[in-house]
Amino acid sequence: MWGGRFQESTAASVEAFTASIHYDSRLYRHDIAGSKAHARMLSRQKLITGVECDAIVKGLDEIEAEIERGDFVFKPELEDIHMNIEKALADKIGVAGERLHTARSRNDQVALDIRLYMRAETKRFQSLLQELQRSLVRLARKYQHTVMPGYTHMQRAQPVLVAHHLLAYYEMFGRDRQRLADGLVRINVMPLGSAALAGTGLPIDRHYVAEQLGFPKVSANSMDSVADRDFVIEFLATAAMIQLHLSRLSEELVLWASEEFSFIRLADSFCTGSSIMPQKKNPDIPELIRGKTGRVTGNLMALLTLMKGLPMTYNRDLQEDKEPLFDTIDTVAPSVSIMSELLAHLEFNQERLAQSTIGGYMTATDLADYLVRQNVPFRQAHAIVGRTVAYGLEQGKELHEMSLDDLRQFSEHIFDDVFEVLSAAGSVNSRVSIGGTSGETVAAALELAAKDLDLQ
Amino acid sequence: MWGGRFQESTAASVEAFTASIHYDSRLYRHDIAGSKAHARMLSRQKLITGVECDAIVKGLDEIEAEIERGDFVFKPELEDIHMNIEKALADKIGVAGERLHTARSRNDQVALDIRLYMRAETKRFQSLLQELQRSLVRLARKYQHTVMPGYTHMQRAQPVLVAHHLLAYYEMFGRDRQRLADGLVRINVMPLGSAALAGTGLPIDRHYVAEQLGFPKVSANSMDSVADRDFVIEFLATAAMIQLHLSRLSEELVLWASEEFSFIRLADSFCTGSSIMPQKKNPDIPELIRGKTGRVTGNLMALLTLMKGLPMTYNRDLQEDKEPLFDTIDTVAPSVSIMSELLAHLEFNQERLAQSTIGGYMTATDLADYLVRQNVPFRQAHAIVGRTVAYGLEQGKELHEMSLDDLRQFSEHIFDDVFEVLSAAGSVNSRVSIGGTSGETVAAALELAAKDLDLQ
Amino acid sequence: MWGGRFQESTAASVEAFTASIHYDSRLYRHDIAGSKAHARMLSRQKLITGVECDAIVKGLDEIEAEIERGDFVFKPELEDIHMNIEKALADKIGVAGERLHTARSRNDQVALDIRLYMRAETKRFQSLLQELQRSLVRLARKYQHTVMPGYTHMQRAQPVLVAHHLLAYYEMFGRDRQRLADGLVRINVMPLGSAALAGTGLPIDRHYVAEQLGFPKVSANSMDSVADRDFVIEFLATAAMIQLHLSRLSEELVLWASEEFSFIRLADSFCTGSSIMPQKKNPDIPELIRGKTGRVTGNLMALLTLMKGLPMTYNRDLQEDKEPLFDTIDTVAPSVSIMSELLAHLEFNQERLAQSTIGGYMTATDLADYLVRQNVPFRQAHAIVGRTVAYGLEQGKELHEMSLDDLRQFSEHIFDDVFEVLSAAGSVNSRVSIGGTSGETVAAALELAAKDLDLQ
Amino acid sequence: MWGGRFQESTAASVEAFTASIHYDSRLYRHDIAGSKAHARMLSRQKLITGVECDAIVKGLDEIEAEIERGDFVFKPELEDIHMNIEKALADKIGVAGERLHTARSRNDQVALDIRLYMRAETKRFQSLLQELQRSLVRLARKYQHTVMPGYTHMQRAQPVLVAHHLLAYYEMFGRDRQRLADGLVRINVMPLGSAALAGTGLPIDRHYVAEQLGFPKVSANSMDSVADRDFVIEFLATAAMIQLHLSRLSEELVLWASEEFSFIRLADSFCTGSSIMPQKKNPDIPELIRGKTGRVTGNLMALLTLMKGLPMTYNRDLQEDKEPLFDTIDTVAPSVSIMSELLAHLEFNQERLAQSTIGGYMTATDLADYLVRQNVPFRQAHAIVGRTVAYGLEQGKELHEMSLDDLRQFSEHIFDDVFEVLSAAGSVNSRVSIGGTSGETVAAALELAAKDLDLQ
Repeated sequence: MWGGRFQESTAASVEAFTASIHYDSRLYRHDIAGSKAHARMLSRQKLITGVECDAIVKGLDEIEAEIERGDFVFKPELEDIHMNIEKALADKIGVAGERLHTARSRNDQVALDIRLYMRAETKRFQSLLQELQRSLVRLARKYQHTVMPGYTHMQRAQPVLVAHHLLAYYEMFGRDRQRLADGLVRINVMPLGSAALAGTGLPIDRHYVAEQLGFPKVSANSMDSVADRDFVIEFLATAAMIQLHLSRLSEELVLWASEEFSFIRLADSFCTGSSIMPQKKNPDIPELIRGKTGRVTGNLMALLTLMKGLPMTYNRDLQEDKEPLFDTIDTVAPSVSIMSELLAHLEFNQERLAQSTIGGYMTATDLADYLVRQNVPFRQAHAIVGRTVAYGLEQGKELHEMSLDDLRQFSEHIFDDVFEVLSAAGSVNSRVSIGGTSGETVAAALELAAKDLDLQ
Repeated sequence: MWGGRFQESTAASVEAFTASIHYDSRLYRHDIAGSKAHARMLSRQKLITGVECDAIVKGLDEIEAEIERGDFVFKPELEDIHMNIEKALADKIGVAGERLHTARSRNDQVALDIRLYMRAETKRFQSLLQELQRSLVRLARKYQHTVMPGYTHMQRAQPVLVAHHLLAYYEMFGRDRQRLADGLVRINVMPLGSAALAGTGLPIDRHYVAEQLGFPKVSANSMDSVADRDFVIEFLATAAMIQLHLSRLSEELVLWASEEFSFIRLADSFCTGSSIMPQKKNPDIPELIRGKTGRVTGNLMALLTLMKGLPMTYNRDLQEDKEPLFDTIDTVAPSVSIMSELLAHLEFNQERLAQSTIGGYMTATDLADYLVRQNVPFRQAHAIVGRTVAYGLEQGKELHEMSLDDLRQFSEHIFDDVFEVLSAAGSVNSRVSIGGTSGETVAAALELAAKDLDLQ
Repeated sequence: MWGGRFQESTAASVEAFTASIHYDSRLYRHDIAGSKAHARMLSRQKLITGVECDAIVKGLDEIEAEIERGDFVFKPELEDIHMNIEKALADKIGVAGERLHTARSRNDQVALDIRLYMRAETKRFQSLLQELQRSLVRLARKYQHTVMPGYTHMQRAQPVLVAHHLLAYYEMFGRDRQRLADGLVRINVMPLGSAALAGTGLPIDRHYVAEQLGFPKVSANSMDSVADRDFVIEFLATAAMIQLHLSRLSEELVLWASEEFSFIRLADSFCTGSSIMPQKKNPDIPELIRGKTGRVTGNLMALLTLMKGLPMTYNRDLQEDKEPLFDTIDTVAPSVSIMSELLAHLEFNQERLAQSTIGGYMTATDLADYLVRQNVPFRQAHAIVGRTVAYGLEQGKELHEMSLDDLRQFSEHIFDDVFEVLSAAGSVNSRVSIGGTSGETVAAALELAAKDLDLQ
Repeated sequence: MWGGRFQESTAASVEAFTASIHYDSRLYRHDIAGSKAHARMLSRQKLITGVECDAIVKGLDEIEAEIERGDFVFKPELEDIHMNIEKALADKIGVAGERLHTARSRNDQVALDIRLYMRAETKRFQSLLQELQRSLVRLARKYQHTVMPGYTHMQRAQPVLVAHHLLAYYEMFGRDRQRLADGLVRINVMPLGSAALAGTGLPIDRHYVAEQLGFPKVSANSMDSVADRDFVIEFLATAAMIQLHLSRLSEELVLWASEEFSFIRLADSFCTGSSIMPQKKNPDIPELIRGKTGRVTGNLMALLTLMKGLPMTYNRDLQEDKEPLFDTIDTVAPSVSIMSELLAHLEFNQERLAQSTIGGYMTATDLADYLVRQNVPFRQAHAIVGRTVAYGLEQGKELHEMSLDDLRQFSEHIFDDVFEVLSAAGSVNSRVSIGGTSGETVAAALELAAKDLDLQ
């Protein structure tokens, strides 16, 4: 379709190497939607007749139906989805089809298709994340009053509510939703009419195309419009962050499902076994999700490398934007979605958690804060409790197992009421600072989250 | 300062390996600002006395002055900026200093410091980008009517205005500013009061700290607050995009400064020579900027790898967030700023550009569009012009060098008036579609840009 | 096949999420070869009977034939290639098939399969690179005496032979072949018999398996054997280097094919056109190769991220090693191979090259060296020539266009014989240092290369 | 020193942006060694006199001494280490110093310096890795007979010897040493004499320079020599692998040091505490090492991005190779070295390990193998044991806690002698396959390792 000036036909190996139809066919719906809007605009601007426009629209609808039925034959020698559809249209409706490409280029056409596709995917991602947040909140509610060890450096630090821990992930995925919303503003810009790179002299109406396709604005510079893949990189960066968050949650699930932690029980239906070890029940889902972080990060790296140092405007290198994008979408979406399912089938082992909150001197900070309330400067309080813990390690006693005399060896500011702050439950419920882990603050956070998520 | 429970002192090699003071000392101003706000809150909440608070604030002010004068001795054995300052304070003011760390942890303290630092840096980046945009617009104005070849695939495609080309970069850096603004919303959240991970039981007032430090909101979940470095990754991703844009502009400058293009002349003061080849004048600045894209991308990858699979909440791995962040800031900011300067010292070679717009059949699309206006379907018009170009290549004639008879061999729809569309200037000025390269549309774009940038 | 201890069957979404058969089916030949060698060993060690062994081997041969004919139905519910084949075998030959998995695990089996696959691919890559080197040498010979500008900083620096320039790439791809050979030593280690992670108590003979499959050694530690993916990462790093080298060559081809350089003419059959601009002939192949550098780098990043922080031994994350590996192989191999073809269809524009070697003061270093021979210290000579060039730029004269008087303004050590060193050809041929660009040294390099490549 | 043709002096901002002396000063020793060898060659080739050569060598020795004493003033306006030293030399010895740069360029000079530097660093890395392997072997010997759970999917899988587990890392670091050795062959190539890019016409003797500096070969193509940074990328890839291996070991140490595992006790001197939680003792060293994986990976990505698409030959972008290289060296070397130290101060908790090998049905495979020995096909044996485990989970009994009758419910092929294979020790010692975990095979592996490492 571009062969006029060429003396030789394309080598078969070149056709194979340059074809993108095996993956960009996924854009067919967006390509057709864009072409229909373009045709209607051409007709309104008298660049084609109403009859031609109708033929084009009808032809494109038929092609869409054929593709969806699986009856359409994609041809690699026609390179990409744009040429495949345009050629099929011309074959079907004749000369009117040869007018469709008036005042546009594949450069702006593909930019339009990706933007339409990514707009839809962004919205789907937002829903998937919301559903994952709902799973987290449901699980948090189920274990609203269960205490577990909170960790820093993988060491037991202070007791927290399971619900508080889960709500940390609610926050992360909430930020991811915000990032998607922010990125959408930059995706949602209509590039068609930029033509090859310089705009067109034909009297087109870009706003009318934008209106038909639901774009709030049209792109401002034609050269930028066809050279820009920022919005893809931004999406890939946000997707990498989502998968990163999933990897952290997955790491915890893998640990919690280990014999050593035994904090949770994953449903049999969400695990697989071993081909050799009959006793094994493996947490494959979180392992795979964690592993998939690599490819999502890699895809972002791919695009950043791809774009580095490319001069204006469209270069064929840009064709390589699609597979990393598609792979990221096909990786992150099912990861988010199966994580939601997995959480719905997960049980915390409350007995074990209760037992785990006893050891590890996790209320040492509470003891220090007790001393602060007795007007001991914090640094001194910290040192006093440090020595108390050292003594406890030596004697094999947790803080709450010590007698008042034991404790008063280290500070005369300790009295009978100290034991109230040395229990896990006491510790948790004391932390009423905003964002803290007390039952009260967590209940408020759960309520807020439920509201955000339209959860009953 | 945490040694109470330890029996052995830290090994020297461990001290060296774990210390961060050699790079996190850069955060001193933010650490002090945070501590002052924290002290005032403690005092208002009666956790310390007004007298103690005054001593702390005065002491911190003195420490800040000492650091700025270069009189402060940072000690690696005190690990980081937080401990260095706290210890110096206690040495200076005594027991009041030992009360400062009440109801906080280094976990939330460092989160606060980075957020304060990044808020300032984000704003600085926004200014720098604005200044770069101003340079672009000034240069575009200077060459507002100069035509140059526009490229796709590094092949001459269609003539464009130099100003239009430069405005493509104005758009890119504009989007970068938007991304910074979006990211700022997520940076601008006050984490202090999350304490180690679970909040605190002491009666603090987080909103008062936020108010003092100009934060519009406080973080919602204490565990997330100390485990989160999303905002760093997001900033690094935006910074990678900025450097990517710079790399594209740099690539073009390097090409344009080559003998083969000779489109621009860089100032001698912005180039360097060769130690061996006396004739060389090298475009080092854009080369270095392009090269620096690697490290900025690498820093983003560093953080993504770092965070992968980290369980809740704070892990010491997080200490490794700072150097990549600092390196990115120290790389991107000067790159943006020297690019602004370079552009101010750059001249386009107008004669050469004029000459370059003559060759390469760059008005072939205009000829096709001419035929479209004669009602030839675009695909047919494209084929006709393709054959005309093939003929031209054979005959060594550009389109405008052909006679009407030459042209009419390929289509009877070509008439005398065709020559109007075959000149570069005619082509450029015809492209009046929104975002197109015509003098008119570009003038409007320049005006809009000048308004956005407060440029006269 | 592992379900004994499970109470619920696997959820459909889990089956879909964990299945790898859609991509690991590519390993069928290696899986079958490994199983046959394993069965023969089991038989020799009396762990199965000769009759059972024969049935297994025959059954596996039939399955291989079915797969190659396209008659084999891969089932996602059987997860992977290993289970698909083992189950089909058991269905086909009964109980003997249920003995095949004796003393092995999928953990060591998949390690074996990938190693067999990568050994074959490494060898194919070596051939492809050799063929590319042959294309470079053939092209270099064709233009053995053609001079072109050599560049540093994209500025004309010193004249060089086209052949010398092309041989720089011969060197790069030669190193890539060495790296592949080095990596092969680490790939070529037999892991089977490591079983799940700890080896086996059944009396197997690992050396016999290795011998049958052509492995020079068996792995030394069973835990390492099933947890290790170093050899994949190393291969991906080498592949990234190959693609990097291709990206550099591609960049040059794109530039050389531009109107501004016009150094080469790519065959029409290796270019494509534009859907809108009838005159365009685009260097798509090198653009795409350059663009594909992104995904190859990204795949390396994917594996590095994937493996970070994984505890011993096998984790399901490791399943994610295959798609990046396969994608890299499917990207790099055709890139190398089409580059060989492209070079075979490329012509240098000798006239243009000749013309290009005249300008740009490219013999300035030769003038400096001339002065050195007159005993002028190099730094002074450099300064003298620098001033001479400045004068030339002002006067619009190249060095060889100046009169002796012109030149002697700057140094009295310049005499009549200076003009011999100021021509491009003279400059090139003077550079007889080892590795230099003189006709003589390049001819020797070509001869050496031809010998290495078995080229006539 | 290159200013002859320039009309304006370099802008201060440009000087600051382009200077590399603040980091490349680290190469001074290599730069001086290279210059001395070069001077001696120039003298032998009569390009300078013996007297001049002596003055140069003496001057350079003095400069080296000044630098080592801290008396040398590095000047940013002299850009880099090469110019700083050359200028200081000329200032010191006069005109002879101005002859040193004869027949060389900074392009080949810097390539030489980096290669010399990296050769030394490669050797240092090899020693450090060997020392780490020694630490692993020493620790393995100390716990040679201690059994621990072996894991797949972070689930207890089969019991293994602690020594066997540690030797898995011995293998990994052994491969890293091999990779360094392979890379060294490509580092160890002498580039000097390639001059700017094309070689030189002055009668130099490259072999003599190589010989003086201990290079086994000289580079074959001058353009490749100055454009090549493969050897840096390859080193960074190997370094990334080393850090990856460290990250895996670190992850295990962090887990093992947790309350839940309690497998090890880290020395107090290798841990740090918390500023708020007095009881904390954190495994900072392995956490930091794990975290540093990010930057090492990032540095590799930086170089790959940097080099992508760079045309021949030297481009200023290449200056950006050094900081990532230096940072990687400064990160990986101390990580390896402190890991050696840490292992020397680590104790396994043998009681806890013994206890941990009891639970988790870790001898299920042994039971299946027992059945295989009774001629039950493995797949059936696997299913039988699967059902037995399910029964055990229901009854709360481990396999060795069941009676013979319990076991015989699932297979009549189980007899009294089964209990021998159900103990952890029995399981471990049965695995005598090469590379397996039995006491016997591990003892042999330890002996081999000790020999490789010259350990008594």
